[in-house]
Amino acid sequence: MKEQKLTTANYKGTRDFFPEDMRLRNYLFSVMKQVAVSYGYEEYDGPMIESLDLYRAKTGEEIVGKQIYNFIDKGGREVAIRPEMTPTVARMVASKLRDLPRPIRWFSIPNLWRYEQPGHGRLREHWQLNVDMFGVNHFRAELEIFSLACDILFAFGASRNSFRVKVSHRSLLDEFFKSGLKLKPEQGQEVSKILDKKNKITGDEYVALVSKTIPEDATAVSKIDQFLAATVENIQTIPGLTGETIQKINDLFSGLKDLGLSDIVDFDPSVVRGFDYYTGFIFEIFDTSPKNKRSLYGGGRYDNLIGLFSNEELSGIGFGLGDVTLQNFLETHGLLPNLSNANTVYIPLLDDTSFFAAQTLAKQFRAASVAVDLSLQSQKMGKQLSYAEKKGYRWILILGEEETKNQTVTLKDMVHRSQEELKWDDALQKVRTELS
Amino acid sequence: MKEQKLTTANYKGTRDFFPEDMRLRNYLFSVMKQVAVSYGYEEYDGPMIESLDLYRAKTGEEIVGKQIYNFIDKGGREVAIRPEMTPTVARMVASKLRDLPRPIRWFSIPNLWRYEQPGHGRLREHWQLNVDMFGVNHFRAELEIFSLACDILFAFGASRNSFRVKVSHRSLLDEFFKSGLKLKPEQGQEVSKILDKKNKITGDEYVALVSKTIPEDATAVSKIDQFLAATVENIQTIPGLTGETIQKINDLFSGLKDLGLSDIVDFDPSVVRGFDYYTGFIFEIFDTSPKNKRSLYGGGRYDNLIGLFSNEELSGIGFGLGDVTLQNFLETHGLLPNLSNANTVYIPLLDDTSFFAAQTLAKQFRAASVAVDLSLQSQKMGKQLSYAEKKGYRWILILGEEETKNQTVTLKDMVHRSQEELKWDDALQKVRTELS
Repeated sequence: MKEQKLTTANYKGTRDFFPEDMRLRNYLFSVMKQVAVSYGYEEYDGPMIESLDLYRAKTGEEIVGKQIYNFIDKGGREVAIRPEMTPTVARMVASKLRDLPRPIRWFSIPNLWRYEQPGHGRLREHWQLNVDMFGVNHFRAELEIFSLACDILFAFGASRNSFRVKVSHRSLLDEFFKSGLKLKPEQGQEVSKILDKKNKITGDEYVALVSKTIPEDATAVSKIDQFLAATVENIQTIPGLTGETIQKINDLFSGLKDLGLSDIVDFDPSVVRGFDYYTGFIFEIFDTSPKNKRSLYGGGRYDNLIGLFSNEELSGIGFGLGDVTLQNFLETHGLLPNLSNANTVYIPLLDDTSFFAAQTLAKQFRAASVAVDLSLQSQKMGKQLSYAEKKGYRWILILGEEETKNQTVTLKDMVHRSQEELKWDDALQKVRTELS
Repeated sequence: MKEQKLTTANYKGTRDFFPEDMRLRNYLFSVMKQVAVSYGYEEYDGPMIESLDLYRAKTGEEIVGKQIYNFIDKGGREVAIRPEMTPTVARMVASKLRDLPRPIRWFSIPNLWRYEQPGHGRLREHWQLNVDMFGVNHFRAELEIFSLACDILFAFGASRNSFRVKVSHRSLLDEFFKSGLKLKPEQGQEVSKILDKKNKITGDEYVALVSKTIPEDATAVSKIDQFLAATVENIQTIPGLTGETIQKINDLFSGLKDLGLSDIVDFDPSVVRGFDYYTGFIFEIFDTSPKNKRSLYGGGRYDNLIGLFSNEELSGIGFGLGDVTLQNFLETHGLLPNLSNANTVYIPLLDDTSFFAAQTLAKQFRAASVAVDLSLQSQKMGKQLSYAEKKGYRWILILGEEETKNQTVTLKDMVHRSQEELKWDDALQKVRTELS
C-alpha cells in the first residue's frame, strides 16, 4: 500500500526563505538597522504572542473580529499572535516608565501576522521595521523621524526624486471639520474615511459620498477642494484653523528647510492615515514611480501611547515600514543588489589522504573570518567544480599531495578564470584583500 | 469613574527584550551565525505557522496533544506555531530536492513555541540555532558537525575543559538490546527510556525499573552496566555488536583524533537522545561545571528526513542549540560580555540656535558609521550629561556658539574624564580609532 505523502507547500500567505531569499532579507534588515542605530535608536523585541486584550482595547472591532490570529491557549487564556508592534512597545515602555531615560529611542523588526486574503504586497506573515521616539513633544522629534525615514531609503541607494514625504497634522482636519465645515463628530469621521479612499474611487462617487454625508451644506465639496489644495504659504486661508496649528505647521516646514529636506517633503492636507490614535503630525511616504504609485510607509505622533496601562501621559512619534513594501520599492527602482555566495572559498577533495590537511587549511581561513566550504567526499574534479559553480563560489583552493607536502595550494579564481600556486598564508592574504 | 488599566506583564513563559537584553541576544546570534557561515552553512527561515499535520506525523502524541500551540485558523485549517524546526526544514528541502546542490548545509535561528510549565531553562518561546547537513552519509560529515558544534562554544570564549561531547550510535543500542540482551522491541524502547533518565533517579529505582522490564534475565542489570562502561578500545566486548557498527565507531574516533578533538569527545554508550528519528551517530554536549551539570545541546544523524513528503531518501545530520541553555552556560563560566552603548556619541543641545549645526555634525559622524544621539531640547548641561551617563555613552560632543563659528567641537571622554577642543574631522577621526 502506498503511503500518503504530505504537501511541501508552505502555509497560505507566508514565505519560505531559502538561502537566496534569506540573503536578501538579511540585507534589507541590516541596512534598516544600521540607519536606526546611527541615529542612536536601540533595538528591542517582545514575544510573538500577547494577551488578546491588548488588541481588543487598542484597535477597532474589524481586526479583533476578523483579521487577527487569536485563539485560546491550553490554559484557557485568550491570546493573539501580534498583528502590529505598537501595543507591545506601549506595554514594555509602560512597565519600565520610571527607569527609562528619555527620550526613549527604540526600533524593532518584528514579524507580524494578519489573517487576510494574500495579494500583491499583502501577506499573512510579514516583517515590519518599527521606529519610535517617546518623551519629546517638540517638532524637532518630527524632524529627526522624517530625516531617519528618508535616510533609510537613501541607504538603499534611492534617489531624491524616487519618493516623496507627504505631511499633515491631525488638528488641521479636526479644526477644519469642526469650525470650518461645522460638522458633527460622526460626520467628521465619515469625511476622513472618504478622503482616505479618495484616490481609489471616481470623482462622481466622491462627490456623491460627500454630499450624502453633509446634506446641509451645498458648498461642502468646493470647501473641501480648497482645503485639499492649501499650501504652507496660504494655509491661513483654510477656514477654522487655530493660530496654534498654523504655527506648528510653519515651524515644522521651516525646520525641514534648515535640514535640507524641503525638496522631498510636501505639505498635503489630504493625508489622513487609517488609525484613530494619531494626535499630531501624520505623514506618508509615496513612491513616485508610475509603476508602483503607492504609499510605502507612514506614521505620526500619538499622544497617549500608554493610556491603556497607566494614568501617566507619554507622547510618541514613529513609523512602520514593511519588508514586502520595501522590497517592491527597491525592485521598481532597480535597487536590489546581487547577493551571492562569492565570498565563500571552496576546497574540493581530490583524494582521501588530503582530508585532514584540507581541514587544517580550512581552519586557518575560518580563523581569519573567511568562510570555507570543504568537500567531504573525494570525487572527480569536474564534478566538484560544477558544484562550486552552482553555489556561486569565486575562489577554489586545490590541495593535492604535492601541494600538501610543500605547504602550498593552487588558488583558482572562477571569475577571472585564472590560477596560481601560493603559500597558504599568501593565498589567504590574496583572498582577504579581494573580499567584497 | 476610574478606567480599568491593563497589566504590563508579558505572556507567561515569554521574555520582553529591552535594549540591554536585545544587545545580548544579538551578540549570541551573531557569534553563532558567524561560526556557521565560516563553515559554508547558509541561513534559511520558514513561516512561524505550519499545518498541524507536519507535527502530527513526525512527533509522538504527547506533543500534538499537550505541548504544541495548535489552533484552527479562520479558514478552518488545523495549524500550529512551530515547536521545532526539523519538520519545516524537511518540507523546504523536499520541495526543492532536485535543484539544491549537495551537500546542503543550512542553518537557522528560529523562535519556537511549546506549551509547557515555565521553569529554569524552559520557556514557552525560545530561539534555537539549528545546523544541518543533508546528502552526505559519511562520517566526515559527523566530524564537521562536531567540529562546528565545538567551535561555537570556543567562539564565545569557552575553554577546552568547560564542556564535553558524548557520542554514541543508534545501532549500538539496537544491536545490544536485540542480540546482546535478546529483548523484544517494546522492551528495548522501555530500557532506552530508563537509560535516558538514569541520572535523574536513584540507583535502587534504576535497578527496580530494569528488573521489572526484563524479568526473564537476572543478569540484565550487570550486562547493561558493562555496556555502559565500554570504551572505544574494548567496544568489541559488548555482546551483540556487528562488525559494521564497531568499524563505524572506530573510524569516527580515529578521525576525531586526526582533527585534534579527541580530548573533548568521549565515546559514551549511555547517550540515548529522546527522539526516535535518529538512525546513526547521536551526541550530546555537556557542561562540565558542577554548577550547571547538564546537557547543553545535542543532535545526530537521521536517515529519512523527507520521508513524509517524498519517496526519495535523504540522509541528514544536525543539532539544535537553544538560546536559554547557551546563555546559562556562558553565565556559569563567566563568559557573558559587558555590552554597552559606549560606541554611541552624544551631542547635548546647549541653546536652540546650535540645533542645525549639531544636525550637520551628526550627519558627518553617521555617514562614517558612528552612531549619534542628538539632544532635541536645550537643557542644563548637568541634566544632559546625567542622561548620557545613564545611557552609558562614552563620547560627548559639545557644540556651543563659539565652537560652531570656528567649526570646532569639544570632545569629552566620559571614561577618561578628559576633554579637548578639536576640528570636526579630527574629533571624528579620534572617535573612530577608539571605537571598540
